[in-house]
Amino acid sequence: MAMKLHGLEMSTNTSRVMVCLREKEVDFELVPVNVFAGEHKQYPFLSKNPFGMIPVLEDGDLTLFESRAITAYLAEKYKETGPDLIRHNKPKEAALVKVWSEVESQVYDPAISPIVFEYFVAPFQGKEPNQSVIDASVEKVKSVLDVYEAKLSSSKYLAGDFFSLADLNHIPHTHYFMKTRCASLLNDRPHVKAWWEDISSRPSFSKLVGAMTFGQK
Amino acid sequence: MAMKLHGLEMSTNTSRVMVCLREKEVDFELVPVNVFAGEHKQYPFLSKNPFGMIPVLEDGDLTLFESRAITAYLAEKYKETGPDLIRHNKPKEAALVKVWSEVESQVYDPAISPIVFEYFVAPFQGKEPNQSVIDASVEKVKSVLDVYEAKLSSSKYLAGDFFSLADLNHIPHTHYFMKTRCASLLNDRPHVKAWWEDISSRPSFSKLVGAMTFGQK
Repeated sequence: MAMKLHGLEMSTNTSRVMVCLREKEVDFELVPVNVFAGEHKQYPFLSKNPFGMIPVLEDGDLTLFESRAITAYLAEKYKETGPDLIRHNKPKEAALVKVWSEVESQVYDPAISPIVFEYFVAPFQGKEPNQSVIDASVEKVKSVLDVYEAKLSSSKYLAGDFFSLADLNHIPHTHYFMKTRCASLLNDRPHVKAWWEDISSRPSFSKLVGAMTFGQK
Repeated sequence: MAMKLHGLEMSTNTSRVMVCLREKEVDFELVPVNVFAGEHKQYPFLSKNPFGMIPVLEDGDLTLFESRAITAYLAEKYKETGPDLIRHNKPKEAALVKVWSEVESQVYDPAISPIVFEYFVAPFQGKEPNQSVIDASVEKVKSVLDVYEAKLSSSKYLAGDFFSLADLNHIPHTHYFMKTRCASLLNDRPHVKAWWEDISSRPSFSKLVGAMTFGQK
């Protein structure tokens, strides 16, 4: 039985899992969740994820939520298929994949997501983007990307010279970030720009791009 | 050569790693970092963690940062020693450890950490706690802990009937949260209270409690 992924293609957290499923060439069925009608905040969805957030992956009798947990699960389950996203036989490389995956979650995402929110979610909610939030975030993004630029000048990807879960987890939010006026922060840093062009052109993601249009008219 | 942990016992992120090291009975040397003098924002510390945050773990020629990455690394490296924090031979349990570890990082911590910040860090910076931030966070904490209460009424720990990395990662921030006026939010939920009393009384943590006094006079 194919896995079921409950979510929406245009959602960053859903697409994070979809990219991973495609890297691993896993068959799955996408079950749309109407978040605009609040379906994720009601039963039966809450019985799958009591926190009321997409995505949810059902794999047989296992029900999983939190997109980064799901990608880590898939990377482990299919470690022999497609790219080895967790470097399972190389403990030092595996450790660095863990480090840079946490950097995405704890450092990179908190810096860029307010910008994505202000440019895409606020207008959707009928509000003007809050420029002071954007300005404060720009300063944080600059200092984070300075570290990325230095790192990516010494290795092709974040954890080393191999594409890993750490890179993959960055893709969806960065996709929306690159549609904002702040994209130059990334484009101005040549090694970060080359890394982004590389990871965003992977077939696992390029097939999804057409559907990642939240907030566009 | 013993591992070197650069950090401060009173720091939540450092103590997260110390609890894990002690669960695994690993020898280590704690190398104090004078964060009050900004040592973590200067070289040579920045050569260990370019983001300028504690802790950093040095294990031979491997330098790791991000506390949750370090605990995951230790749980994998020492999977045969002490409690199996990642359930490495049980894929379904291992998947649930991943899920609830991400819940700690993405849901629980963002809800409680503003409260910890307002009660401990703001006064240290000479500011009054911001009551409106606390009030908004209290509402978030309530809804998160309602889910925890339901979960912990069906299993002793978050990922199942076994202590795991998911539980461990919660300990340090919850320790400070429980010193605030908001502690009743946890104490009012009997299964969450029993879980907290269980995990916070583990010897790996109870030895540390005396040093976790940030913000106390």
